[in-house]
Amino acid sequence: MRNDPIGLMDSGVGGLTVLKEIQRLLPTEKTVYLGDQGRLPYGPRSAAEVTAFTRQIAAYLRQKHHIKLLVIACNTATAAALPTMQAELPIPVVGVISPGARAGVQATRNHQIGVIATAGTVKSDQYRQQILAKDARNTVVSVATPELVTLAEQNDLVSAHAQEVVTQAVAPLKNQGIDTLVLGCTHFPLLRQAIQGAVGSAVHLVNPGTATAAAVTTLLDYWNLANDQSNDQPTAVYYTTGDADRFDRLANQWLNRTPVQAIPVTIQTLERAMQTTEGE
Amino acid sequence: MRNDPIGLMDSGVGGLTVLKEIQRLLPTEKTVYLGDQGRLPYGPRSAAEVTAFTRQIAAYLRQKHHIKLLVIACNTATAAALPTMQAELPIPVVGVISPGARAGVQATRNHQIGVIATAGTVKSDQYRQQILAKDARNTVVSVATPELVTLAEQNDLVSAHAQEVVTQAVAPLKNQGIDTLVLGCTHFPLLRQAIQGAVGSAVHLVNPGTATAAAVTTLLDYWNLANDQSNDQPTAVYYTTGDADRFDRLANQWLNRTPVQAIPVTIQTLERAMQTTEGE
Repeated sequence: MRNDPIGLMDSGVGGLTVLKEIQRLLPTEKTVYLGDQGRLPYGPRSAAEVTAFTRQIAAYLRQKHHIKLLVIACNTATAAALPTMQAELPIPVVGVISPGARAGVQATRNHQIGVIATAGTVKSDQYRQQILAKDARNTVVSVATPELVTLAEQNDLVSAHAQEVVTQAVAPLKNQGIDTLVLGCTHFPLLRQAIQGAVGSAVHLVNPGTATAAAVTTLLDYWNLANDQSNDQPTAVYYTTGDADRFDRLANQWLNRTPVQAIPVTIQTLERAMQTTEGE
Repeated sequence: MRNDPIGLMDSGVGGLTVLKEIQRLLPTEKTVYLGDQGRLPYGPRSAAEVTAFTRQIAAYLRQKHHIKLLVIACNTATAAALPTMQAELPIPVVGVISPGARAGVQATRNHQIGVIATAGTVKSDQYRQQILAKDARNTVVSVATPELVTLAEQNDLVSAHAQEVVTQAVAPLKNQGIDTLVLGCTHFPLLRQAIQGAVGSAVHLVNPGTATAAAVTTLLDYWNLANDQSNDQPTAVYYTTGDADRFDRLANQWLNRTPVQAIPVTIQTLERAMQTTEGE
C-alpha cells in the first residue's frame, strides 16, 4: 500500500502543475497521471457528467495501478465530484479548491481576493464560499477566463498573442483593489508570467497546486501512507485520452524530468473500468 | 462540532509555540490549551506513564470543552502516545514529530540534519526514523539537550547565562556539517535566538510547530471541521496543573494576545476525567 502510486486526474495537461508540486515535495513517491483530453473541456459540462468521468478515471487508476490516494487535479472536477468521490472511494481523495482557498486566505492582507477559473468553477461558487467560510472579512471577485485553458492546451504560453488574450481576460479585475489572485484552474500556473504581467507585480498569485501538494504530504503522513523507499526508483506514468504527442510536448517542457511518454488510453477503456467496478 | 475548539496539550509552556502558529494560521478558531506543569518534565518518564497522562488530559479537554481535534504539542508525548491516542479517540489527533520530520526533509539541501530534543524523544529515535523513512539519503545527528527545557520553563531565554547553556548543549553538533536543525522539543523555539547564535546563521532552524499548524489546517479542511464563524469571537482558554502566574508571564510575553490568565486545574481532576470516561 505505502509503495503504491499517488493518482492524479485532470481534463487535460493543467493538472501537471499540481503533479509538478507533488514531485517536488515528495520526490520518493510514484505517481500516475491521467489527462482526459479526449473529453476536454470539462468546464461547460454538467456536474453529473463530470462526476461520471471522474468515477471512471478513479476506477481505472485503482484497477490498473492500485493508487493509494487520488488527487482530483482539476478545479471543475473538484467542484463537481469531490464529496461524491470521497464518499465512494476507500482511499483518501484530495481536491484543489479547499487548499487553494486556504492559501488565498493566508496570503491576503487587505481581504480583497480575486479568483480566475473556468465558467463551471465560477458557477459552482465554491472558491468564494470557501474563502468566506474561512474568514468572513474577505471579499471575493470571481472572473471566468476559459480562454486561458485553450492557450495552455495549445502550449501558447508566452507569445504576444497569449499576453493579449490574458490581459483582456483578466481586465475585469483591474481597479478592484485585490492584493491576491487565486489561479482557480490548474492550467493557469502555466500562464503565470502572462497573468502576472496583466495584473501587475503587486498582486500575489496563489497556485492551489502548491497548497494541494502540501495537503497530500500531510494526509500521507497522517495515514502512514508515505512511500517507505524499500523498492526501486520513483516512477511516473502518464495517460491521455487525447493526442499523446501534444501531451508529451507540454509535459516535457513543464516538468523538467526524464522524458515523458504518455500512454494513450481510450474513453471506452475508462468506461469499462467503471463497469468492472460495478460488477464487483 | 465545527465551532468547537481545537485542544492542545503539553507538559508545560513549550506547546505555546505550537499554539502561536495555530492562532496565526487559523485566527477564527477557538483553542483550549493545557500545560501539565505539575508533572513536568515528561522527558525522563516511561512511555506508559506519559501515555496515561495524555489520556487523562484528552479526556478532560473532551468532557469540558468538546474539542474537535487534539494536538499533542509535545514531542515526548507524541513519541510515547500518538498511535495509542489516534486509536482510542474518535477525533483526529495530531502530533508534532511527523510534521517536524517532514519539514526537516524539505528544508535540507545537503541531507545532513541535526535534531535537538529531550532525552526521551532522542531515545524514542522517532525523528531519525521518520526523517530516514521520508528520504533515505539523509543522515541524522540527534543530541539530547534537556537543559534547554529548564531555561524555557524559567523564562530565561536571552540572558548571557541562557546563551552559555545553549552553546554548550548544542556543541556536539559543531563540525557535523548539518545545514538544518530540527527543534525537536516545543520549548526550543522560545530559545531560537540563542540556538541560532550557537549553531551559526547558515543552519536552517525548523520549528515543527509551524508544520504542525499547517497539518492541522489541512486536516480541519479535509474533514470539514474548520470554524464556520457563525458564532462569536474566537476564544483561547488556558489551563495549567502548575503555577498559573509563571504560566501567564511567559504566555503573555510569547503570544502577544489579549492577556492570558491560566485556570489552575489539579492532577486529581485530570485523573477523575479519565475515570469518568472509563465508566461511560
